[in-house]
Amino acid sequence: MPENTLYPHVSVDCVVLGFDGSQFNVLLLKRTGIEGSQTFNDLKLPGGLIFSDENLDDAAHRIVGEHINTNALFLKQFKSFGSPSRTSHPRDVHWLEKAVQLKIGRIVTIGYLALLRISSTLRFHSKDVQAIWVPLQQVGTLAFDHNQIVEEAVREVCEIVVRDPSTVFNLLPKRFTASQMRVVYEALFGQPLDVRNFHKKMSRMPYVVPLDEFEKQVAHRAARYYRFDKKIYFKVYGGFYPGRSSLYGQ
Amino acid sequence: MPENTLYPHVSVDCVVLGFDGSQFNVLLLKRTGIEGSQTFNDLKLPGGLIFSDENLDDAAHRIVGEHINTNALFLKQFKSFGSPSRTSHPRDVHWLEKAVQLKIGRIVTIGYLALLRISSTLRFHSKDVQAIWVPLQQVGTLAFDHNQIVEEAVREVCEIVVRDPSTVFNLLPKRFTASQMRVVYEALFGQPLDVRNFHKKMSRMPYVVPLDEFEKQVAHRAARYYRFDKKIYFKVYGGFYPGRSSLYGQ
Repeated sequence: MPENTLYPHVSVDCVVLGFDGSQFNVLLLKRTGIEGSQTFNDLKLPGGLIFSDENLDDAAHRIVGEHINTNALFLKQFKSFGSPSRTSHPRDVHWLEKAVQLKIGRIVTIGYLALLRISSTLRFHSKDVQAIWVPLQQVGTLAFDHNQIVEEAVREVCEIVVRDPSTVFNLLPKRFTASQMRVVYEALFGQPLDVRNFHKKMSRMPYVVPLDEFEKQVAHRAARYYRFDKKIYFKVYGGFYPGRSSLYGQ
Repeated sequence: MPENTLYPHVSVDCVVLGFDGSQFNVLLLKRTGIEGSQTFNDLKLPGGLIFSDENLDDAAHRIVGEHINTNALFLKQFKSFGSPSRTSHPRDVHWLEKAVQLKIGRIVTIGYLALLRISSTLRFHSKDVQAIWVPLQQVGTLAFDHNQIVEEAVREVCEIVVRDPSTVFNLLPKRFTASQMRVVYEALFGQPLDVRNFHKKMSRMPYVVPLDEFEKQVAHRAARYYRFDKKIYFKVYGGFYPGRSSLYGQ
């Protein structure tokens, strides 16, 4: 291993959040390492050092692409993590130095985030035995500072959703009931929401359009279906100011 | 100079945007370097390599703090820039290697952003001869990829303002006229806005409260003053969903 603790390494870590209809799951990789004389098994985010000739977005796509098809995936850079102590745990340092065959001092990592609906068409690559979906509520202690990275990614998604509610509709079927929509918010914000209040809020979203269609063959009272109207949404949220198309107003 | 082109270096670059009542200015530093046998003078963003024991936010505050008082300044990390070609210009490489006394291969830089109102109380440190405010419209070719970083910072501010219009009121006096408010948007989006339309949009912002006070001693018709009401704003924008306080809903 070349000795080099002078300069930080740069990595990319990806928080891929998948909504399965009832809860959010995070894409994690199984890791096996050695601490002292003991073998341990735990989980980590998909991540790794960037290649010397690779830009950051490409690294993120390469890394997630090892596990799922990223063609339709929007990987958004959301935050960099650079605390000098983030690689301080001996088990992490030992595991990483073995994995990359480099002496590791400090690593600055660029956090990426993707949000998707876990549908029947989404599959792990057939040879992949490392990746699993773990419900957010069941995530234990992860490698490095990956708990913090997941936490900040979830907070980022909450902020995005509050500011740009259209995000939610990518996680729902084209026709959805009020309770399906409520469940997305409940899962994301980690707490139950009052049903009646939620209905009231929904009725104030002109871009959530009620349909004359109802659930069929259900034991409870058949719920109404709604759809998301992009045009109305754009009028409410996007149409206020023009995009800034040119640099420095030139 | 120690030879080391194997690993990327990590730096921080800061886009401090100051609104002066009529336009946005960016904080830039004068740079003198040598290209071939010629001396050149140009401008760069405040930035630099992170110290080995320093986290990213601290580095940003240290770097901007060399020029202005950062106590009241919110420096927000907005994006990392890691294209392998961003340090490809020979004049940049030469200048940097001389400045930091290191052989430089690739640099991944973490972009920070701050937005402030240039007021009479804001001054450069008295010994600082390097820093200047340059109106966005007059920014020429900057060092490295700093034009791109400025451009993306401005785009980020536009997005923040569209999603969270309260940002605008930090750039205005406590009492402001409609035209003062319009000028902020015009300066930011780099294009004139229709006066009547803007008034209409303003009247649909319940948190922009008209006062019974008018301009005094003006040649034109005295304009009404408005104020920003945080409580009403919070009801409209912030009060919909609870903050996600705990990790993974625990």
